[in-house]
Amino acid sequence: MKLLRVGTAGSERPALLDADGTLRDLSGVVTDIDGAMLGDDAALDRVRAAAEAGDLPALDGTGLRVGPPVGRVGKIVCIGLNYHDHARETGAEPPAEPVVFFKAPDTVVGPHDTVLVPRGSAKTDWEVELAVVIGRTARYLESAAEGLACVAGYAVAHDVSEREFQIERGGTWDKGKNCETFNPLGPWLVTADEVPDPQRLSLRLWVNGELKQDGTTADQIFPVGEVVRYVSRFMVLRPGDVINTGTPAGVAMGQPEPKPYLRAGDVVELEVEGLGRQRQELKNA
Amino acid sequence: MKLLRVGTAGSERPALLDADGTLRDLSGVVTDIDGAMLGDDAALDRVRAAAEAGDLPALDGTGLRVGPPVGRVGKIVCIGLNYHDHARETGAEPPAEPVVFFKAPDTVVGPHDTVLVPRGSAKTDWEVELAVVIGRTARYLESAAEGLACVAGYAVAHDVSEREFQIERGGTWDKGKNCETFNPLGPWLVTADEVPDPQRLSLRLWVNGELKQDGTTADQIFPVGEVVRYVSRFMVLRPGDVINTGTPAGVAMGQPEPKPYLRAGDVVELEVEGLGRQRQELKNA
Repeated sequence: MKLLRVGTAGSERPALLDADGTLRDLSGVVTDIDGAMLGDDAALDRVRAAAEAGDLPALDGTGLRVGPPVGRVGKIVCIGLNYHDHARETGAEPPAEPVVFFKAPDTVVGPHDTVLVPRGSAKTDWEVELAVVIGRTARYLESAAEGLACVAGYAVAHDVSEREFQIERGGTWDKGKNCETFNPLGPWLVTADEVPDPQRLSLRLWVNGELKQDGTTADQIFPVGEVVRYVSRFMVLRPGDVINTGTPAGVAMGQPEPKPYLRAGDVVELEVEGLGRQRQELKNA
Repeated sequence: MKLLRVGTAGSERPALLDADGTLRDLSGVVTDIDGAMLGDDAALDRVRAAAEAGDLPALDGTGLRVGPPVGRVGKIVCIGLNYHDHARETGAEPPAEPVVFFKAPDTVVGPHDTVLVPRGSAKTDWEVELAVVIGRTARYLESAAEGLACVAGYAVAHDVSEREFQIERGGTWDKGKNCETFNPLGPWLVTADEVPDPQRLSLRLWVNGELKQDGTTADQIFPVGEVVRYVSRFMVLRPGDVINTGTPAGVAMGQPEPKPYLRAGDVVELEVEGLGRQRQELKNA
């Protein structure tokens, strides 16, 4: 299923995009798409049964904003340098174990919302990523298979990054990863049953129509199940948590000088195979 | 005012500790102590008026668990190496600007709840901290005075840390800061009007009755108002967010070998002047 949330920011209603591309209202079946719903097998079964029975009213999507496909995100765990080609372009050795950092839940915006270049920023950069949405509590897992079993579904994430704040201002990467609007998510949460192999998805990102990133999750150093297992040894993952699993090569930081960092007026488009497409215009904060 | 939340985990009710030390039920006045309430002047005024009028029913605290004093914490921003004496003991230069890392909101537990030593941990460490709870949105602030004006109140935080996970496992500090139960908070949220100078508070921590940390917020490299101003340049702070403002000297990592890291059965007690006292027993996860 393709689950999504539509409406004004903070007042989104749950919806489903059916096989014919028709938007269907889910608000008669579940109150929201969030950790409580994703962790509740009965709620998912109700949605599936209603969709299969053709019981869901169509929604007119004209002019309707698409919000992030998960409400009340608990935490966003990010994996750094998780693609061989991206590690190479940054000059870093492939990490011996996953690099973990955080984005705060309030950085999440819809897939087509404005992204703000922070005040004082000269190095705002793009990163297309496969986001994993957790559906079952993961705590001290033993295997990658157990990790995959905790995944509710997948979505496109844009891990917007300010490289000076991230790298040149002291401390951890978090300082350059948590600016306002820095985590567009969606358009859809595609349930895990419809993504049979998360390690065979292409990812692409364009800036002003020019292809900048063109990778595949086959190049991930630590695949999805292993990432979930690994992270679960250090913290509890709960339904509604998100993992951004890293970006392939092609970010601005990896290009020759002058590096083409983002500026107000730029348009970024990005997609992950089968998970839909995002488009953001950059503006100044 | 001393605001707190009492009851079983996840079902706490709002309460107030009055000047006589009597616990008062706030659930007839506000639904919870959280970002929505702390950002709502009218709600705070209602609580204050009811307290002054003597209208609040007494609560029998016998056997009642004290929860974290803030519900639905949005994000926890942590400041590293923010005391001169702690920077010295770790061998680090005092940072030129604040070091920022994150704890996820679901690490928060009550002030007397069990703290779990993570599986595989040999370096679980303690850190007493002054926590700042945000009451007004802080975004691109210009001055430390503006920063202080965004503070709803103060609380004791225990920034429990696993040093091997934090420092020796690659990536950022977040990996050693987000284990289950790693952020006891409380017992009270003391409103900012009752903390006239947050830079004159003593902080103390004991392990099994032995004094380990004995510092003062006067030793902070970046004081509270400046921390809020600084962080607001990199991310938006919202009502219900928490900032852990760093720890003074005396952590296990700073001691001679063999360093006395925490083990199951240890008891940690900690206090910040005027903000109450915590006590946790360590158990194995």
